[in-house]
Amino acid sequence: MTETVDFPEFDPPNRPHRPDTNWLTKDEMRQARSRLPIVYVDAVPVRVDDVGDVIQVGLLLRVTEGGQINRALVSGRVLFHERIRDALMRHIEKDLGPMALPTIPASPQPFTVAEYFPTPGVTPYFDHRQHAVSLAYVVPVRGDCAPQQDAIELSWLTPEESMHPDVLSEMAGGQDVLLRQALAHVGRLA
Amino acid sequence: MTETVDFPEFDPPNRPHRPDTNWLTKDEMRQARSRLPIVYVDAVPVRVDDVGDVIQVGLLLRVTEGGQINRALVSGRVLFHERIRDALMRHIEKDLGPMALPTIPASPQPFTVAEYFPTPGVTPYFDHRQHAVSLAYVVPVRGDCAPQQDAIELSWLTPEESMHPDVLSEMAGGQDVLLRQALAHVGRLA
Amino acid sequence: MTETVDFPEFDPPNRPHRPDTNWLTKDEMRQARSRLPIVYVDAVPVRVDDVGDVIQVGLLLRVTEGGQINRALVSGRVLFHERIRDALMRHIEKDLGPMALPTIPASPQPFTVAEYFPTPGVTPYFDHRQHAVSLAYVVPVRGDCAPQQDAIELSWLTPEESMHPDVLSEMAGGQDVLLRQALAHVGRLA
Amino acid sequence: MTETVDFPEFDPPNRPHRPDTNWLTKDEMRQARSRLPIVYVDAVPVRVDDVGDVIQVGLLLRVTEGGQINRALVSGRVLFHERIRDALMRHIEKDLGPMALPTIPASPQPFTVAEYFPTPGVTPYFDHRQHAVSLAYVVPVRGDCAPQQDAIELSWLTPEESMHPDVLSEMAGGQDVLLRQALAHVGRLA
Repeated sequence: MTETVDFPEFDPPNRPHRPDTNWLTKDEMRQARSRLPIVYVDAVPVRVDDVGDVIQVGLLLRVTEGGQINRALVSGRVLFHERIRDALMRHIEKDLGPMALPTIPASPQPFTVAEYFPTPGVTPYFDHRQHAVSLAYVVPVRGDCAPQQDAIELSWLTPEESMHPDVLSEMAGGQDVLLRQALAHVGRLA
Repeated sequence: MTETVDFPEFDPPNRPHRPDTNWLTKDEMRQARSRLPIVYVDAVPVRVDDVGDVIQVGLLLRVTEGGQINRALVSGRVLFHERIRDALMRHIEKDLGPMALPTIPASPQPFTVAEYFPTPGVTPYFDHRQHAVSLAYVVPVRGDCAPQQDAIELSWLTPEESMHPDVLSEMAGGQDVLLRQALAHVGRLA
Repeated sequence: MTETVDFPEFDPPNRPHRPDTNWLTKDEMRQARSRLPIVYVDAVPVRVDDVGDVIQVGLLLRVTEGGQINRALVSGRVLFHERIRDALMRHIEKDLGPMALPTIPASPQPFTVAEYFPTPGVTPYFDHRQHAVSLAYVVPVRGDCAPQQDAIELSWLTPEESMHPDVLSEMAGGQDVLLRQALAHVGRLA
Repeated sequence: MTETVDFPEFDPPNRPHRPDTNWLTKDEMRQARSRLPIVYVDAVPVRVDDVGDVIQVGLLLRVTEGGQINRALVSGRVLFHERIRDALMRHIEKDLGPMALPTIPASPQPFTVAEYFPTPGVTPYFDHRQHAVSLAYVVPVRGDCAPQQDAIELSWLTPEESMHPDVLSEMAGGQDVLLRQALAHVGRLA
């Protein structure tokens, strides 16, 4: 899960009918997270060739609070009154920059649903902060990507490189499993 | 959306690690619903023949608060620390009774995601109470179904009958669209 | 089904290991069609907005041998030793021209499989010439489309317009059903 | 790919409109296989718990012509004028016996399409005999399975056991990849 702040101070444009009073304070959000599953999206950014075959996977490189290197997918919360596809676009632009030119899928059908539990072992996915139900999509990007905020690098790896144990071991919360599921879905597991 | 109560008084068995304090009061739930998208599941109960072809669709018949006849799919909230497949089973048993013998899908990939908005027109789905993000599944049932709680009848219709304008017009919140999407998915739209 | 010729006289480049002797004569193909299911692809060309939402559907306008107006999806046979994604690209370029800039899906998972039978009524799909098993995909196109060969026009319709009974009635072989399945899949059935 | 004979001597019941003359001789089939992609189905037989979670995978154990141990999925050709779901049922009964009680999926949407090429390396799948386009499904079975014909055993393995390198190495033609794709699809890759 990306750790970037999910709560903008200002009401973003183009998101109608959501009075400011609907924003949650940090305390309220923490409380909600302990009592309700939270809607998330996970995006696996990929480069494709001209017939759509995945040739590279984009992984964000971050340094965690504990000082460890961490590779991550694009991931984040869906806001109140925000469509899935708008949330996907917002989080991809947040993490990859405004020039990434992502191709958000035409269909809302995700390739899987990752259920991040605050208790390890219930599912392959884990998030100590919350129970997140995350709709996962493969998202081709055509433009220039520039890591934003707390990410220090965006590395493009071939499907084979991305499945190297060393790379997978740098992913947290079960995102290594989610990445392999994405590659299975696009026929690039081998 | 089914209007049945989502908050059991007792902690159900087999749902570990969820202290009682995690339950939301009715007020807290109302507040959460105005600030966060809520995770839902929608299930389209079907009868299939011996090679899996859908031959009937099950629709719940209810009388709304306003006294109108309403046909509905099985629908309900996913609880904190509850897996999607457990929520599907719970809501199907809640609405169709304990002898329905549903075949919960092996894969978490839904056929679509229905985004119920509190504002009409943003998506085809509408729920005045909340913004619900609902994972939708077709669920074959093999056993005896008995409508529970506030449903007065469960009617089994052929795909053709279920798509009659009179039937579709008795469905609320865009569930008529969701039903047709389900039938499209199983190849029984025509 | 598009009626364009499936058998190029010359061996196209980039299709290795297929000696000329593998080409079927017209007679051999007719015989195969009466004895084996034939692998097809169906593509529903769409225009999407910047968050991937389908805003238009492209339908080919043709005059049939019988002189009737016919609207069709992009459709055609998969050749020996040709990948699905290469067949999709070839048929889209064949029907929409070389500047269509289609986004071939990253995943081989089709939204449905249309089983065209030579006998009406077995499935919603019919093809008097053959039993075709067609993998169906929604394909966003970003470039300029110019109808090729026997198509006299490519018309872009909104999802709502494309589902008008007058439009659907101009589609043959069950492609009206397939179109509605595609729109159901992308959440634009309503 | 299973190596069992695809050409019954007698016309099976319930398969209408297919005159005997449509059967291919062995020579004609060999010729077709060198010139046309052949429609196949692959089925991954699984045992599921009462909420649909996959707990075991069924693999056929065979001795190849060369005397090697080989593990295989259920796999076979779709016949002329045969629906996908009928082909799935026929091949599962052929390999697992008539009491397997498979739950053929309600939707024709496969979890992937495996393109077996006669040339190694084009895709992860390989079949020296032919170019097969195989629609792949996960099929829960509830009954008693008895290996038929040339299979000497049906072994039920947990998802974890089935992904052991020793097991995967006993699968041919890329079916190890297909198995892992199936497990990814049902959320049991880890």
